[in-house]
Amino acid sequence: MNRAKLIETIRRKKSFLCIGLDADINKIPKHLHSKGDPVFEFNKGIIDATRDLAIAYKPNLAFYESRGPEGWISLRKTIEYLKQWNNEILTIADAKRGDIGNTSKHYAKTFLEYLNFDAITVAPYMGEDSVSPFLEYDEKWVILLALTSNKGALDFQMIRSAENDKTLFENVLTISQKWGNEENMMYVVGATQAEMLQQVRKIIPDHFLLVPGIGAQGGSLEEVAKNGINNDCGLIVNSSRGIIFADETESYAEVAREKALVVQGEMRSILTEHGIV
Amino acid sequence: MNRAKLIETIRRKKSFLCIGLDADINKIPKHLHSKGDPVFEFNKGIIDATRDLAIAYKPNLAFYESRGPEGWISLRKTIEYLKQWNNEILTIADAKRGDIGNTSKHYAKTFLEYLNFDAITVAPYMGEDSVSPFLEYDEKWVILLALTSNKGALDFQMIRSAENDKTLFENVLTISQKWGNEENMMYVVGATQAEMLQQVRKIIPDHFLLVPGIGAQGGSLEEVAKNGINNDCGLIVNSSRGIIFADETESYAEVAREKALVVQGEMRSILTEHGIV
Repeated sequence: MNRAKLIETIRRKKSFLCIGLDADINKIPKHLHSKGDPVFEFNKGIIDATRDLAIAYKPNLAFYESRGPEGWISLRKTIEYLKQWNNEILTIADAKRGDIGNTSKHYAKTFLEYLNFDAITVAPYMGEDSVSPFLEYDEKWVILLALTSNKGALDFQMIRSAENDKTLFENVLTISQKWGNEENMMYVVGATQAEMLQQVRKIIPDHFLLVPGIGAQGGSLEEVAKNGINNDCGLIVNSSRGIIFADETESYAEVAREKALVVQGEMRSILTEHGIV
Repeated sequence: MNRAKLIETIRRKKSFLCIGLDADINKIPKHLHSKGDPVFEFNKGIIDATRDLAIAYKPNLAFYESRGPEGWISLRKTIEYLKQWNNEILTIADAKRGDIGNTSKHYAKTFLEYLNFDAITVAPYMGEDSVSPFLEYDEKWVILLALTSNKGALDFQMIRSAENDKTLFENVLTISQKWGNEENMMYVVGATQAEMLQQVRKIIPDHFLLVPGIGAQGGSLEEVAKNGINNDCGLIVNSSRGIIFADETESYAEVAREKALVVQGEMRSILTEHGIV
């Protein structure tokens, strides 16, 4: 999915919600365990109940890998299911990969060809040649970690450079501008750091940001929008546990829809207020 | 495998060689393609031919993931095969994972429980809570990226902090000391940066280092040993392509052994010279 289509989807759905498919098999409703592939059935239920409200879905690889080959089968079925709505759903592999060039090529092949995701999250520590193999695909996206939503974000990401007085995450934003552009790169900026979004927008006014940390991690949607929105919206805000695990009974999908509707309602107001819809 | 056993293994085998099982299915000998699981058969051939010479094996996840669920089955069979020599082979998942705490827990479970590797490489960008879940296992290791062997290492890892005048990789070494110790943490320091090993050893004299970049990437074993060895050896030097893909015929395993013998011969001399064996 390219940038124009993404923006069009946001306008049509009046939403910039991404739903994190962190389908922990120990947390999904019990009645699904009798199905052939409980995790896929769970995801299908969530997708069917929310796909008019969400513009993106983001399976986190950890929850699939921890089930071995079976987990990969659930993941493949989920992405194949999502691909029916190719033009109205952005699919994000939350994989946080990154290795030397030759190895990153294989990761890129896995996620952007074999699994055919639209986007993948990538860790910046190893620099350009660890990221650029993911940028060689048309209409696909690298979502580079910049400022994450966890406590450990403070350990290294805020270290200020003696050379240019920028923090590490600001240097990641600045230096990576040479590797890609706003048509094929986005950045992860955590909602728990909403006030930092102003700093981010000074460096990258136009790029889309993937914002985790709303809900369970404590970030506020209003704060994120106030500091991070741009003329094309420029935000994809993720919620995982707050939507997918809001209920553990047979009604889990309906309850997920209710929760997603609340978030999408707020998003519609924000988009209206900013004249985007 | 704990530190004492690792040191004992190095002394007994007179080697600190790690063989990277980067088993790219497009590069393995053609005659293996008729087998049920060509990648596992390839790995088995390499392991059988070299396990008296190598103290560690390191499958790189990218080469397995790119084959989907089948790749995971090859990986699982490889690690199960290696586990026969539990006490004399260190198994390393070269996975470069790292995510918020709740997610890293699942990655830790995948690699240190389900697949039962002895060690996993972890990316430091997201800080303490992304790393510490991997440290909660007895006799298991986190191998944290510090200074990598690729060109992109220069993009961020060498940025100097305004606060303490240390480079980012030095801050990774220093700050992560609080998270673990020399019994459960090692660091990746690339052989292509051998002269930097002196800097590294000033900060962490006792920790083991996993050193990639020998051979195909151009690093020199002699330089690495000169700058990085300590009283317990403290080095695990990896070679992948230079050993496993030295030959593409039915003799690939024998040729791999010849190549490994050359490296192990050099290592024996180095260990003797430093009074370690």
